[in-house]
Amino acid sequence: MTLPRSWVASAAPGSDFPLQNLPFGVVAGAGDQPHGVVRIGDEVVHLQGLVASGLLDEPAQSAADAAAGGALNELFALGAEPRIALRAALQSLLIEGSPRQRAVAEFLTPVSEVDVLLPARIGDYTDFYVGIHHARNIGALFRPDDPLLSNYKWMPIAYHGRASSVRVSGTPIMRPHGQLKLAETPTFAPTRRLDFELELGVWIGPGNRPGEPISLTQAESHVAGYCLLNDWSARDVQAWEYQPLGPFLSKNFGTTVSPWVITPEALAPFRIPVTRPAGDPEPLAHLDSEAHRAHGGLDLELEVLLRTAQMRQAGAAPHIIARSSTRHMYWSVGQMITHHTSNGCDLRPGDLLGSGTLSGPEPGSAGSLMELSHGGKDSITLPNGETRTFLEDGDEITLTAHARRPGLATIGFGECAAVVHPPLRREDGF
Amino acid sequence: MTLPRSWVASAAPGSDFPLQNLPFGVVAGAGDQPHGVVRIGDEVVHLQGLVASGLLDEPAQSAADAAAGGALNELFALGAEPRIALRAALQSLLIEGSPRQRAVAEFLTPVSEVDVLLPARIGDYTDFYVGIHHARNIGALFRPDDPLLSNYKWMPIAYHGRASSVRVSGTPIMRPHGQLKLAETPTFAPTRRLDFELELGVWIGPGNRPGEPISLTQAESHVAGYCLLNDWSARDVQAWEYQPLGPFLSKNFGTTVSPWVITPEALAPFRIPVTRPAGDPEPLAHLDSEAHRAHGGLDLELEVLLRTAQMRQAGAAPHIIARSSTRHMYWSVGQMITHHTSNGCDLRPGDLLGSGTLSGPEPGSAGSLMELSHGGKDSITLPNGETRTFLEDGDEITLTAHARRPGLATIGFGECAAVVHPPLRREDGF
Repeated sequence: MTLPRSWVASAAPGSDFPLQNLPFGVVAGAGDQPHGVVRIGDEVVHLQGLVASGLLDEPAQSAADAAAGGALNELFALGAEPRIALRAALQSLLIEGSPRQRAVAEFLTPVSEVDVLLPARIGDYTDFYVGIHHARNIGALFRPDDPLLSNYKWMPIAYHGRASSVRVSGTPIMRPHGQLKLAETPTFAPTRRLDFELELGVWIGPGNRPGEPISLTQAESHVAGYCLLNDWSARDVQAWEYQPLGPFLSKNFGTTVSPWVITPEALAPFRIPVTRPAGDPEPLAHLDSEAHRAHGGLDLELEVLLRTAQMRQAGAAPHIIARSSTRHMYWSVGQMITHHTSNGCDLRPGDLLGSGTLSGPEPGSAGSLMELSHGGKDSITLPNGETRTFLEDGDEITLTAHARRPGLATIGFGECAAVVHPPLRREDGF
Repeated sequence: MTLPRSWVASAAPGSDFPLQNLPFGVVAGAGDQPHGVVRIGDEVVHLQGLVASGLLDEPAQSAADAAAGGALNELFALGAEPRIALRAALQSLLIEGSPRQRAVAEFLTPVSEVDVLLPARIGDYTDFYVGIHHARNIGALFRPDDPLLSNYKWMPIAYHGRASSVRVSGTPIMRPHGQLKLAETPTFAPTRRLDFELELGVWIGPGNRPGEPISLTQAESHVAGYCLLNDWSARDVQAWEYQPLGPFLSKNFGTTVSPWVITPEALAPFRIPVTRPAGDPEPLAHLDSEAHRAHGGLDLELEVLLRTAQMRQAGAAPHIIARSSTRHMYWSVGQMITHHTSNGCDLRPGDLLGSGTLSGPEPGSAGSLMELSHGGKDSITLPNGETRTFLEDGDEITLTAHARRPGLATIGFGECAAVVHPPLRREDGF
């Protein structure tokens, strides 16, 4: 079987963005206001142009119009049906042999010529903790006697994160100051234990009305798309501040997301069953269903790459420091949504969920340096001989995700990357 | 000395809203889109009308224009100077004997004839924990061996709350479902321990750029105003879910705020020194200053009133179940802002801070039923003989705040009130 291909040459197999992907995003540049696009290969399709062209029928036209503005919230609010129609229309316009190739080509620009922005205005950002290996690893470091708490297997644990400081891939992350408990009296200084966290991000739409929970059956219809998410963490600040109300300044100085909203349609072939180890409790009724067990999970390969300033100067490629998978989610995205709304809390289009760090059980599969270095005790060694326990200024962390299966087009997420900048110098009393 | 009075009769001494208060708000009704107003007595002044009237000079005109729309974020972004100019202009227009009385009276409507709305679009909502008596009381219930953790006196502990579910006073609160740990296996059921929390709210503006902390010297200039805040809490859900990442579904089903944005100018005469008990550590340098010690605090009298359905049917007045004060803040609003941004986290106009529950040390001064009932062990008795440990359906909780000092006009906050509605019936598998 030959896979359908696009006439856009850079969308050939091997690209993160073949005809089968078609993620949404927002770009600006060359005097243009921020506006919605679809990514194909190394190009973006400007949706404003397509809307004006008359090439789309309803409901694809309405979906493209909703996505054409400076943020995708309006598209997210429409839900699955118009989005699916737009996807089908785009595939027929972009497929090899399309009679519309010349007309559509007018609306393409190389992605290298635009600024890629945050795709939506984020109302609320919630960070979950569904990577069970991470929860166990981190728990063992913070609470050696009680690593995995008794509530973990009963509910997808989560906390609210900071929406204002979510940044798009490519935005530098400044090493934050914070209180460090190095002695009896804490010190206010730049963090010495700056870390990344490898997470799956979920864009929400349409959401629910206050007081009306979203059942597990309906939960998937409220996913507008997926991204990668790096939940930067200052471990020394976290250890001192996090009791009793959870992480705060150790996390809210910056969270990086990849810019492309990967649709549920693109990932539909990569759904997997949700299984639990023998002996684990069954989820409560509202967090469980036959259909969910059959295909509530998602199979994505994840990687973390590190490039130090020295490597960048030497022209060395980023080095893979961890390989993991979304198979390590103990709770699914559907369960996250149902739990989140089970008390009537309202989700809104453009809200962002993080999965929590997705570590695997094997060495080299941990989604944070805290785990890879065993709490800073063991350093990892890079190909050029440099070592790391935590991140140093100039280090660049890149997260990637790919859905791969024999006989199917590979779906990539693009990059979620940022360079660590030195801390602010404080002349103002800080 | 006679205090200046307004020609608006309902703004006479004894009103929460005399000439010396003049809080901002947003209203709608009678076919009008949401728009900004200033409250005086039992009336609201429509700012759109005032802007069009030519009665204001710059920069008051710009401030009124910024406040005239459907949310006050734009006014908050302007900072103190235009707001102060608008206040002065409004006072001269509304004072007894003003030659403009007839012209201004055209723009007044009784507040009873409009719907009072949430005053701003909330970007992020952060809830602090600066009421030390509450922290100690609650800590003793959740962790009898370690009530006040060692970080408490070094930093204003906080966590991120949910912005989407912040509701304006008057919006009912539905009793949420949640996981209750009543036996080995948790149960999903309506909370049995629904509680309120008495808090001071802070509206933020103009805020800081990412990476640029706000020093304690500058912190006060980023306060756009104050309100009352009820951080509704499901204690049974909280006890089971809150480890290790803090409260989540136990809090995010609803937070009620009072609608009137009480300005820093109105509260300026009620600033007090910030003092710490002998033997407590001095704050770190960035959280301390001479000026802050001299007048970083705020002196507001707080009350919690309960009216049950039975009392409402009998026409009985709400009963005061607690009296407290903002004097019980261990950390000031300025310290909250400086700590929050000390890692570079950006605050934006319209962000909301909660102080955390402000309980006093005496009996009858606790800002939650969890404390008043000693963890549900002792019930409180109401004048009609009804008893309460936690809230029952039909109960109405009202928070009030007043700044009172001999020789000064009393400044009131109005009401922060909501009735508890019964839980949703779940026919959909919940």
